[in-house]
Amino acid sequence: MRIDILTIFPEMFSPLNQSMIGKAQERGLVEIHSHDFREFADNKQRHVDDMPYGGGQGMLLMAQPIFDCFASIPKSDQKPPRVILLDPAGVQFDQSKAEELSQEEQLIFICGHYEGFDERIKTLVTDEISLGDYILTGGELAASVMIDATVRLIPAVLGREESHLDDSYSSGLLEYPQYTRPEDFRGMKVPEVLMSGHHENIRKWRLTESLKKTLQRRPDLLENQDLSDEAKSILIDLKKIGPQN
Amino acid sequence: MRIDILTIFPEMFSPLNQSMIGKAQERGLVEIHSHDFREFADNKQRHVDDMPYGGGQGMLLMAQPIFDCFASIPKSDQKPPRVILLDPAGVQFDQSKAEELSQEEQLIFICGHYEGFDERIKTLVTDEISLGDYILTGGELAASVMIDATVRLIPAVLGREESHLDDSYSSGLLEYPQYTRPEDFRGMKVPEVLMSGHHENIRKWRLTESLKKTLQRRPDLLENQDLSDEAKSILIDLKKIGPQN
Repeated sequence: MRIDILTIFPEMFSPLNQSMIGKAQERGLVEIHSHDFREFADNKQRHVDDMPYGGGQGMLLMAQPIFDCFASIPKSDQKPPRVILLDPAGVQFDQSKAEELSQEEQLIFICGHYEGFDERIKTLVTDEISLGDYILTGGELAASVMIDATVRLIPAVLGREESHLDDSYSSGLLEYPQYTRPEDFRGMKVPEVLMSGHHENIRKWRLTESLKKTLQRRPDLLENQDLSDEAKSILIDLKKIGPQN
Repeated sequence: MRIDILTIFPEMFSPLNQSMIGKAQERGLVEIHSHDFREFADNKQRHVDDMPYGGGQGMLLMAQPIFDCFASIPKSDQKPPRVILLDPAGVQFDQSKAEELSQEEQLIFICGHYEGFDERIKTLVTDEISLGDYILTGGELAASVMIDATVRLIPAVLGREESHLDDSYSSGLLEYPQYTRPEDFRGMKVPEVLMSGHHENIRKWRLTESLKKTLQRRPDLLENQDLSDEAKSILIDLKKIGPQN
């Protein structure tokens, strides 16, 4: 996969050279290029923003530097790239969007700063996506999050150690509590069942704890889910004793 | 405000030295400290993770390095810090959570990597927060997003230029389309009303466009909102002609 980012803060993408995404780049599984669109501004002062027509506070990104920077990016002939504008008014990003994007050959992210964009920039865009119902100082961190969530789903990016098969949302349930050494940490002990070596009891305890947590915190995740008969019967018992227990 | 971050990738927070959050630090409005909890591991190999009790894939962060790193952080005597664990099973982060956190004196973020945490780490935590319904390779980018959304709400962080009064979500409506120079960009023209200088028509056009976009994309934002009589009457007209027009 090739990822291009249009930004006036290319240094804000240095975290993508770390950790798993950094390793994926080293292994050639993904190529990430950030482009400073200020370099494409056709005015002497390299301004990329100007005042809004019709009045109002704040500055808007102008179309020209972004159009010309966009034109300079090599694009795949076979499959047109997905062009993503980070916008709080866009579609909410979620795991299924990450899965969809992870199938693409090329993603281009356009990151804004200041109050907003000249609306004509949207003619370049295939997807307006929002990270969530909150406002950020710019699109850079939002793009980094989307890239991280997407790239880790590309086959071979995650090793066996970091397998995403057990993730929350992949199973449709929230994760059960987990414990590692020591057995007694400053007086806090690991639940006995986990020390028992009894696989069937452990499996059942974990399923019950996952269902309990999901019922307490995210009952919406239980709707429209294809639960096993065992899970359904545990849920009925949990509902009888109330969600707080 | 003082912000402390517990992480094994302290370099991933370099974007917070950029842009507006970087300026807020320079101006002394916020102090951000990241702490590598690997330095607190009491084993010779500086391991911070171990296998889960009861079996299963992946590694879990151990309690000890995080407890000892946490203990080393200076904490305010007057007001206890909010201690935030980045966790996909947590409460969903949103603008009202950002507003709430922006009132605090100290925030401490605990960032995980690998499969998860030893459950006993949660005894340190006041808030489990999720950035959204997607999985990231670690908590670092999620913490950066929360810090960005929160710090920009601290009084005096945003200058007049970047005022957040006009934000989507602050007004409760999505933003109307905006345009800046030139009037004709490669054949695409600015709507005439914005060039008219007629303030009342511009105001009304913007309100109508905001309502239209919100009705199309986020009708949920219109519920429980204290709309003006004018907005209500525009909405009635918009609903008559259908949301796609």
